[in-house]
Amino acid sequence: MKHIRIAIGQINTTVGDLEGNSNKILSCMKEAASKDIDLVVFPELSITGYPPEDLLLKPHFIKENFKCLKNISQKTGDTIAIVGFVDEKDGDIYNSAAVICNKKIICVYHKMHLPNYGIFDEKRYFKPGLRNALVKTKDFSFGLNICEDIWTQQSRIEERAFSKAQFLVNISASPYHINKIREREKVIGAKAKRFGIPIVYCNLVGGQDELVFDGRSALFGKDGLVIAQAKAFDEDLLIFDLDLSKKQKKTHSKTKPISEYEEIYSALTLGLKDYVRKNNFNKVALGLSGGIDSALVACIAADALGRGNVLAISMPSRYSSIETQKDAGIIAGNLGIKFHKISIDNIFGSYLKTLSLHFKGSSPNIAEENIQARIRGNILMAFSNKFGYLVLNTGNKSETSAGYCTLYGDMAGGFSVIKDAPKKLVYELAEYRNKREGNDIIPKSVFKRAPTAELRPNQKDQDTLPPYDFLDRVIDLYVEKNKGFDEIVKRVGHKDIVKKTLNMIDRSEYKRRQAPPGVKITPMAFGKDRRMPITNKFTPH
Amino acid sequence: MKHIRIAIGQINTTVGDLEGNSNKILSCMKEAASKDIDLVVFPELSITGYPPEDLLLKPHFIKENFKCLKNISQKTGDTIAIVGFVDEKDGDIYNSAAVICNKKIICVYHKMHLPNYGIFDEKRYFKPGLRNALVKTKDFSFGLNICEDIWTQQSRIEERAFSKAQFLVNISASPYHINKIREREKVIGAKAKRFGIPIVYCNLVGGQDELVFDGRSALFGKDGLVIAQAKAFDEDLLIFDLDLSKKQKKTHSKTKPISEYEEIYSALTLGLKDYVRKNNFNKVALGLSGGIDSALVACIAADALGRGNVLAISMPSRYSSIETQKDAGIIAGNLGIKFHKISIDNIFGSYLKTLSLHFKGSSPNIAEENIQARIRGNILMAFSNKFGYLVLNTGNKSETSAGYCTLYGDMAGGFSVIKDAPKKLVYELAEYRNKREGNDIIPKSVFKRAPTAELRPNQKDQDTLPPYDFLDRVIDLYVEKNKGFDEIVKRVGHKDIVKKTLNMIDRSEYKRRQAPPGVKITPMAFGKDRRMPITNKFTPH
Repeated sequence: MKHIRIAIGQINTTVGDLEGNSNKILSCMKEAASKDIDLVVFPELSITGYPPEDLLLKPHFIKENFKCLKNISQKTGDTIAIVGFVDEKDGDIYNSAAVICNKKIICVYHKMHLPNYGIFDEKRYFKPGLRNALVKTKDFSFGLNICEDIWTQQSRIEERAFSKAQFLVNISASPYHINKIREREKVIGAKAKRFGIPIVYCNLVGGQDELVFDGRSALFGKDGLVIAQAKAFDEDLLIFDLDLSKKQKKTHSKTKPISEYEEIYSALTLGLKDYVRKNNFNKVALGLSGGIDSALVACIAADALGRGNVLAISMPSRYSSIETQKDAGIIAGNLGIKFHKISIDNIFGSYLKTLSLHFKGSSPNIAEENIQARIRGNILMAFSNKFGYLVLNTGNKSETSAGYCTLYGDMAGGFSVIKDAPKKLVYELAEYRNKREGNDIIPKSVFKRAPTAELRPNQKDQDTLPPYDFLDRVIDLYVEKNKGFDEIVKRVGHKDIVKKTLNMIDRSEYKRRQAPPGVKITPMAFGKDRRMPITNKFTPH
Repeated sequence: MKHIRIAIGQINTTVGDLEGNSNKILSCMKEAASKDIDLVVFPELSITGYPPEDLLLKPHFIKENFKCLKNISQKTGDTIAIVGFVDEKDGDIYNSAAVICNKKIICVYHKMHLPNYGIFDEKRYFKPGLRNALVKTKDFSFGLNICEDIWTQQSRIEERAFSKAQFLVNISASPYHINKIREREKVIGAKAKRFGIPIVYCNLVGGQDELVFDGRSALFGKDGLVIAQAKAFDEDLLIFDLDLSKKQKKTHSKTKPISEYEEIYSALTLGLKDYVRKNNFNKVALGLSGGIDSALVACIAADALGRGNVLAISMPSRYSSIETQKDAGIIAGNLGIKFHKISIDNIFGSYLKTLSLHFKGSSPNIAEENIQARIRGNILMAFSNKFGYLVLNTGNKSETSAGYCTLYGDMAGGFSVIKDAPKKLVYELAEYRNKREGNDIIPKSVFKRAPTAELRPNQKDQDTLPPYDFLDRVIDLYVEKNKGFDEIVKRVGHKDIVKKTLNMIDRSEYKRRQAPPGVKITPMAFGKDRRMPITNKFTPH
């Protein structure tokens, strides 16, 4: 057989939805069978969704997942399918791939390299497999492995095993972050070249809590170039013919490049959409202040869920300027989303009156500021409880890092869409969205205005924080690159400001611990990615 | 040498406080030297504190920890010391124990068995060691290992290595949960018997975020019995003479049993005290409703921090009964803590008025209930922001499991003291505290009253939840024992109620993700212990 026809079933699974995921697999298999496909491939843990986390500790979860695999295999014909599932043996479980056809499981591979860093906890659950999979059918033979396996330095034994294969199949659940696609194409392309065989790379797509899987499954030629590529951030059934003759022609790269901002914006949109839908919500509410952060979140929400499913509430106080209030109305109008304006001033007054006896003699400080932010949180949650909206938090990574945000106030919400986007990127994404539209959904005044929380007269973010450009550089070095104080000062100068900034970051861990999840878009996001103790006296600065 | 004198330095370290921890080690070493001690032993990772989590990913943290070890070793004389630290070799790091004396590091052992389950993530950071440590001095020889090593089935090689030792030293950071001490004594006692040598077991003491280490370091005789034991829940320098002659006499168990409730109460007290102090607070504020949960938390807070450092605020609304308001005042009076009474009714009224236009036509529901809870959260946080109190959350495990609590309302706070205590245990601990006092700090009426959130007229917890006895059994089976629906129904019956309860537990994951940390006292606490996805469609019930 010189050519075989392969399909990659790049599906959007949901963690724990064994039946729903099985149905997606079965429906792709049906389509594949109707199109004369020889081999159809599904992502890592396609039956359970990824990552199933502590569901894996429930024995009945493992059993149900196995039932689903049996059920799927019962429905196979001549088309070979590769499905990700959890195998169990002698009380241990394995991150596994089953090769099935003609109602039989013909081979099971156990993932050998288990990632246990960053957002990954696979050693918490799985035993590593000990044997490579070389699958021989009557017409062709291929190697099979799972995600991390292909990112790892292969041992001699592994390399030898694959030397007899005509191609390699890797099934993955590889989460998105900025530039990951270039990293991925480099690593997998290099492996294809090294083994001298094509690689069929099947990645998951969809959002799961903090993670977005970007899809972009691909066929890599033996020269390392991408020959065919599935959609980014969407389901796809990618079909191609694979030339198995030794004299495979030179290939041309067929990656589908998208701009960095389009990519990030798509990741945020899919992450939000899937969180909302997979948690059985359909509409969201957010506070629209007239500032850049909530403006961007409103755009993403309207794009993800449809403008009819987004409620924006402007909640001015005595410190809100006419300009920001006006901008909030314009943005909502441009997007065509629902919009309420609710003054918090009477409620704020009643707090001040109730607390006047206890606060007597103290001058207004952060207490009075945070009361306002928490009134807004309370109002948004009241709309959530009354009408079923999921509340979106609109904080960015710069303020989350520095703790420049109010617990239970602007931090309130079920999902924090742009929590991993530094302030500079927020502006860039807003600009991208305006450009895409061809006109200013977000008015120019929003870009020009100095950032302000408007919780006291004439307040500016820069009264408390270093300039955002500087702050974002420090965050990049300290949070994402784990650099120490001396190294950071060497790079950016301003010893005293760096010291103050690192202190702000360290001291805000308790706030971040209570933050809702949001879409990871950088190599190091807050959340499962960065597990810092709250109680922590390490301050070498 | 037939006898040697050993000291166990059961110290309370703080994560990241390299200098403070080093000073504690040095001061114990000084005392040991003055008392003719041959060997002084400190807990696992005594230089860094345990668990240092992602601090371990900072190269400058590892460097600083090594500097501290060198500094400590420079100050050693004839007394041998064993200190826990992080070793580094070729870019990998190891959970390590250094044997030091006469200004030299004479041996370094790398932990071989790395726990990566429950609250443990050691494989995220450390490489496992490959070699046993058998330390020979001119006068005696001993085996050395670290925590999990002794809980694991030893290989032949390990057993053989220790056959030449006169005793074994294990340095640990073994966190507390109910009954852990019995488990621990069984496991370590069995190992002493199996190896036929005494075991010097040094455990950490103190609170760190969700964890409490209970100390109770001990000398186990070769017959497996405890010969000497250090204090529970407190620092201690336990000194004893170890008979190295083959004809060691039969020993008598010298454990210091404490009652289950005293033990749990002590764990909660130490956990709270250390969280507050190690995070540089000294006073706490809590809402005192007149119910059993906040009453117990007030007692624990007064015991942990001193009554002068506790502020209780009663925040009645139109739905608060005269009786609960009265009981709140009595409890505060009995404890001698500061007490304010602040009606939330005007504020509540102003919310209703502000929202009246939007809520028109809808009947009062959970939205209006939660507004009240969130007003209370806002007031407590205002006291925190104004005067520097750390706010305590007073929710118990039963309501946290079922989601019977309000995000940003009663869930607000920096620390959640009894979050791992089921309702039944809350009553038992309150009773224990009353008994210990010899009179009713918490009035009988609080025990007799049916639990109520008082957020609408005549509300009772049991309008929404199954009876607490039943709920607690389901939580035990589902959360702590990971049993499935069928198994739970088999044990407790009431299929429909079990189904409803499991749904409540599953659907509340998003709330728990935003909850503050609190003291782990059961084998399976919410938090790092139980890592469930929020987005999760696994509902086989």
